[in-house]
Amino acid sequence: MSEKTSSVHYINYLQLDKILDAQHLVSDKKEGVAHEEMLFIIIHQTYELWFKQILHEIGSAMDLFQKDKIDEENIGIIVRRMDRVNKIMTTLVGQLDILETMTSLDFLDFRHHLSPASGFQSHQFRKLEVMLGLKIEKRHQFGGCPYHNQFEGDKKEEILNLEESNSFFTLVEKWLERIPFLNMEEFDFTKKYEKAVNEMLEKEIAIISTSSLLTEENRMLRIRMIEENRKYFERVFDENIHKKAIEEGEIALSYKATMSALLINLYRDEPILHLPYQLLRSVVELDHKIACWRFRHVQMVEKMLGQKIGTGGSSGQEYLKQTVDKHKLFTDLANIATLMISRSYLPELPQNIKNTLGFNYKK
Amino acid sequence: MSEKTSSVHYINYLQLDKILDAQHLVSDKKEGVAHEEMLFIIIHQTYELWFKQILHEIGSAMDLFQKDKIDEENIGIIVRRMDRVNKIMTTLVGQLDILETMTSLDFLDFRHHLSPASGFQSHQFRKLEVMLGLKIEKRHQFGGCPYHNQFEGDKKEEILNLEESNSFFTLVEKWLERIPFLNMEEFDFTKKYEKAVNEMLEKEIAIISTSSLLTEENRMLRIRMIEENRKYFERVFDENIHKKAIEEGEIALSYKATMSALLINLYRDEPILHLPYQLLRSVVELDHKIACWRFRHVQMVEKMLGQKIGTGGSSGQEYLKQTVDKHKLFTDLANIATLMISRSYLPELPQNIKNTLGFNYKK
Amino acid sequence: MSEKTSSVHYINYLQLDKILDAQHLVSDKKEGVAHEEMLFIIIHQTYELWFKQILHEIGSAMDLFQKDKIDEENIGIIVRRMDRVNKIMTTLVGQLDILETMTSLDFLDFRHHLSPASGFQSHQFRKLEVMLGLKIEKRHQFGGCPYHNQFEGDKKEEILNLEESNSFFTLVEKWLERIPFLNMEEFDFTKKYEKAVNEMLEKEIAIISTSSLLTEENRMLRIRMIEENRKYFERVFDENIHKKAIEEGEIALSYKATMSALLINLYRDEPILHLPYQLLRSVVELDHKIACWRFRHVQMVEKMLGQKIGTGGSSGQEYLKQTVDKHKLFTDLANIATLMISRSYLPELPQNIKNTLGFNYKK
Amino acid sequence: MSEKTSSVHYINYLQLDKILDAQHLVSDKKEGVAHEEMLFIIIHQTYELWFKQILHEIGSAMDLFQKDKIDEENIGIIVRRMDRVNKIMTTLVGQLDILETMTSLDFLDFRHHLSPASGFQSHQFRKLEVMLGLKIEKRHQFGGCPYHNQFEGDKKEEILNLEESNSFFTLVEKWLERIPFLNMEEFDFTKKYEKAVNEMLEKEIAIISTSSLLTEENRMLRIRMIEENRKYFERVFDENIHKKAIEEGEIALSYKATMSALLINLYRDEPILHLPYQLLRSVVELDHKIACWRFRHVQMVEKMLGQKIGTGGSSGQEYLKQTVDKHKLFTDLANIATLMISRSYLPELPQNIKNTLGFNYKK
Repeated sequence: MSEKTSSVHYINYLQLDKILDAQHLVSDKKEGVAHEEMLFIIIHQTYELWFKQILHEIGSAMDLFQKDKIDEENIGIIVRRMDRVNKIMTTLVGQLDILETMTSLDFLDFRHHLSPASGFQSHQFRKLEVMLGLKIEKRHQFGGCPYHNQFEGDKKEEILNLEESNSFFTLVEKWLERIPFLNMEEFDFTKKYEKAVNEMLEKEIAIISTSSLLTEENRMLRIRMIEENRKYFERVFDENIHKKAIEEGEIALSYKATMSALLINLYRDEPILHLPYQLLRSVVELDHKIACWRFRHVQMVEKMLGQKIGTGGSSGQEYLKQTVDKHKLFTDLANIATLMISRSYLPELPQNIKNTLGFNYKK
Repeated sequence: MSEKTSSVHYINYLQLDKILDAQHLVSDKKEGVAHEEMLFIIIHQTYELWFKQILHEIGSAMDLFQKDKIDEENIGIIVRRMDRVNKIMTTLVGQLDILETMTSLDFLDFRHHLSPASGFQSHQFRKLEVMLGLKIEKRHQFGGCPYHNQFEGDKKEEILNLEESNSFFTLVEKWLERIPFLNMEEFDFTKKYEKAVNEMLEKEIAIISTSSLLTEENRMLRIRMIEENRKYFERVFDENIHKKAIEEGEIALSYKATMSALLINLYRDEPILHLPYQLLRSVVELDHKIACWRFRHVQMVEKMLGQKIGTGGSSGQEYLKQTVDKHKLFTDLANIATLMISRSYLPELPQNIKNTLGFNYKK
Repeated sequence: MSEKTSSVHYINYLQLDKILDAQHLVSDKKEGVAHEEMLFIIIHQTYELWFKQILHEIGSAMDLFQKDKIDEENIGIIVRRMDRVNKIMTTLVGQLDILETMTSLDFLDFRHHLSPASGFQSHQFRKLEVMLGLKIEKRHQFGGCPYHNQFEGDKKEEILNLEESNSFFTLVEKWLERIPFLNMEEFDFTKKYEKAVNEMLEKEIAIISTSSLLTEENRMLRIRMIEENRKYFERVFDENIHKKAIEEGEIALSYKATMSALLINLYRDEPILHLPYQLLRSVVELDHKIACWRFRHVQMVEKMLGQKIGTGGSSGQEYLKQTVDKHKLFTDLANIATLMISRSYLPELPQNIKNTLGFNYKK
Repeated sequence: MSEKTSSVHYINYLQLDKILDAQHLVSDKKEGVAHEEMLFIIIHQTYELWFKQILHEIGSAMDLFQKDKIDEENIGIIVRRMDRVNKIMTTLVGQLDILETMTSLDFLDFRHHLSPASGFQSHQFRKLEVMLGLKIEKRHQFGGCPYHNQFEGDKKEEILNLEESNSFFTLVEKWLERIPFLNMEEFDFTKKYEKAVNEMLEKEIAIISTSSLLTEENRMLRIRMIEENRKYFERVFDENIHKKAIEEGEIALSYKATMSALLINLYRDEPILHLPYQLLRSVVELDHKIACWRFRHVQMVEKMLGQKIGTGGSSGQEYLKQTVDKHKLFTDLANIATLMISRSYLPELPQNIKNTLGFNYKK
């Protein structure tokens, strides 16, 4: 293998003949090349390449979750892959700065050659949304037609099949439900937690009631505030209230999964809970980063097209804006924060439980 | 001056004795130091330092705008200062990543020592909002009480005075109104522009009407879309429609300023319009970056506190979420994009006008 | 055109069939898929796509520079394209964070399938270096063989031809030489500047000599320092010294171009010099960003391969490290800073010259 | 506590009266305010605030390392704090973009008021370097005088004391030496590793020797390359060679610590090694980020001052450039990558060892 041979290798290995010959400007064939069209094509191609990578990572994480027995090694691997996906998302958000160097006037030089809704049609991004767990009925409708109809043949089939399969959301939920620490020996987490919360709320009310620094009005305000917060706690004290909230579409995560997520967040410093905690953080992070990407996307469209109406009868900006919040999937995991109590109220683990959550190795 | 003396100089010059002795942890005096409280204090202090710098830059830009005659040198200076402010905003958004390393559990270790609404009380940030042009009646209400009441004495006075003074918004608007290119000699921009828009819309309709590739349904859809867009154009064809839209609170920027901004965006490549164009971009950029900071702020609060209700009777997260869109100020400048037409329809400038917009220097 | 048709359009337009079918893992055909190889391929492909975009922008800037008469509109366009290139470079540096999620152990799963120097073989990046102005004799040698031999046929030919053509460096230099402001009417910039520098240096020495705060030792130290700096100024007072410095390889930029760059930096606030100033900044910025990318690349290789020796007989890390400084091209433009004097010493422009540098338009 | 009281609270809590009243411009008292001086002061103050935070985190990590018995909880806490420090470093690098908006001409408006070496005098940054483990004899000399002399009194004392104490480097080294997995029951890691490396090298040579694709020249080249790499492996096969390399200043990390770091990198997927692996990564990351900050600092100084000579008799740029590489501390941890072998050669752990490295909890 000479240097020459290995050089061919690099170009072949990356299939650069395909990759670098896939930019055919429509403006070229028509009234004159629009210099900026190259950027439009290339940045979309990099987005698609990164989407492929994200699907590769999320897909592999889902495979690992589906194995009969998830051992701790796999959780470590999933954490690392989620971390990678989040770093990719950081790049995807950041590189919007490049696209924003293309101004409205530049874009209009070739926009009329493109179909009016081109930005909405990434098959891979739709796949990603569905794989993560976005259900069609939760999806913001665009122009009245079901989004599947953007695609046909195999591509449509693939999306429909994914809708039927276990999503990443479901697999995380099932994994949380499988975690066996909610009721260990004599330590009933739910009961201990309920007791601690009540203690905390009572103490807070007592302080407010006896404080000489507060006006009567302020006293009332603060007590009302505590009562408002209580309803979030009650949802986890009573599985039935939780279930009702699910039925009413307020929340989505099952009761057991919620309790496990809460336990992991509260006792994250126990060795066996380190990685599960990192995993939960990375999932919320992904949800937030996708939302952030959508949000910045809205801003870019605003600068590029303003309020221009698309074929859906509303502006692309308006459609995208709706999805920022509506397409979030893991809000329930972020909202575990609502249920957190400070370490000073946290029920202490008995030593035998602590041992169980630790490592085998004896120093 | 020995090395020693100059060393003292550095520490004195930056007044590090004050700066580095201004972190007194409340958790220190009470039940035990919360390690994470240091981060909470220090990051807020860096935010306040950067707010001071932003006020310094925006204030100086406003001074330059208020000079009787703004010569082109000053626009160049304002552009550079706005660019700096935007780079600061990038840092302010980015450094939320640091604060997010403080988790809910960490925060709860000392949160009870703080007053419940502490995050909302930056006097400098309120000042900035008011200076930029946020009016009290446009401000999202929090817990029913006017936001001024967060402050007292001089600090309250200062905010109330700023509300009465010319804002950055007003100064940009006035500068746009002063720009003398809307009606130059024989070139009446508004008329030429209206003609070009009508030509464009007619051509678009003609293409759709005769296209054999479109179904009847699609044809209708697309024509309706064009008609929807027309209303934005009509607003600038007829000053009265524009005025009505202002009265109804749909838009805020005056008719003349809007037309100047449009002209600058369309003819930005003429030498004399380069810097004005950069200035308009930077103003929209600032608006977007502040919105982005608010957006990421919401996400951080979600992870830290979830839905916890504050004294205002709603969660901090909810309040902040409302301000992301509602406190935007320069949407009308971003939405100039709605009115843009492609270069192929752009009325050509007569040579004598082009000369007028060029440099004196003759090569 | 139905929604379906337009959907096909998006996929066709971006040629996603090619782009997304260009990832063939070598580990796949052999002992078992290495999960991480996908990332390795995809990130290199995104780099190559971005290199294509950078070549597109730099190439177009070079075309504009080569036009007989560069009018100011073109400088504005070049500034915008350079700004885009710099934003792309920011992404290229930033996305190394993604590659760094692939660890040494992961990489070794498939590295043995690749040729040992694969990272050095981007034809496009070599082209970019040559286009910008990197000469073969300035290039850091790797393993003794001329780098052209990495390529063959057309690809080698293309590089050799580029070496013979005008580079971006040369075109910027020629543009600077063409700028006609060095000797305007009665204002001889070089003489005025020399006088101002001497005035400044004398004043500095006078202050030091009479200061009662300085020890004798410190006085000497400071005077020596001023004398050391004087040599940089003398180089521009006397064209012959400058020429000698070029011959000795200390600097590369011609005398006339250097003086124009200095004038632009000193009088950047004059309207006609705004864009030239932005252009010079953006060129230095590009040089710095490429250096930063090389620097971070070294760090990544260190983490991935440590000191592992490649076929060239030295480690890849070591080779890359040498290029960080050695392949910089626009150091002379950055070093204009050495020659700057403060506004208080700056020779004032006569009013007629100021007018010449201003806009035609009379308010 | 009324809203008013709580408002006072925020301002008091953050001591904003001190923080926001610590910007006294020297140019103010003299020939006229230099607008840009504010930025110079404020950005340095934010750097100092962040240095304080970094010292807080590194100091606390060192305390945790010094506890008699480091249990796994503490390693988790250290990992999180290192992660925070690295995010702070990312901000410190990124915010140089803000400082770079201040150009040479702007800086010269007030630079003469400052002492010539002011940028080198951050006491906190010197403390950080010493705490991390930078020894005075490894420090790049500046202008001949020991750097301690920049400081006096308590500040000098503090630095000298830190030089005598355990550094972060030493504590990481000791922790690695304490890790008890190098020789577990029947599994002698060093022997097994040596055997695996030899197997790998022999196989590589065999493939090259019998390959019909290679020219004789290439065959020789590749075999020489393998032999060059062998010397790195031999250093860890034989403790005496390693010791000699330490004596000669080629490496710094002790033999036992090196072997532990290698084991952690190779078997990072075992549950008990997850966090130690993350810790090692984060330490290398910190080293790289500090180097990156120095590197970007050099670029900023180049743009601001070019080659201007300082009192030390060399340019500040030159001094800083030397520290980029020379002040790195954890190169030996990064270079563990040199010693890595692929999973296919990795000695398999016996099941009883695997159990020992796992969790107590039995599913």
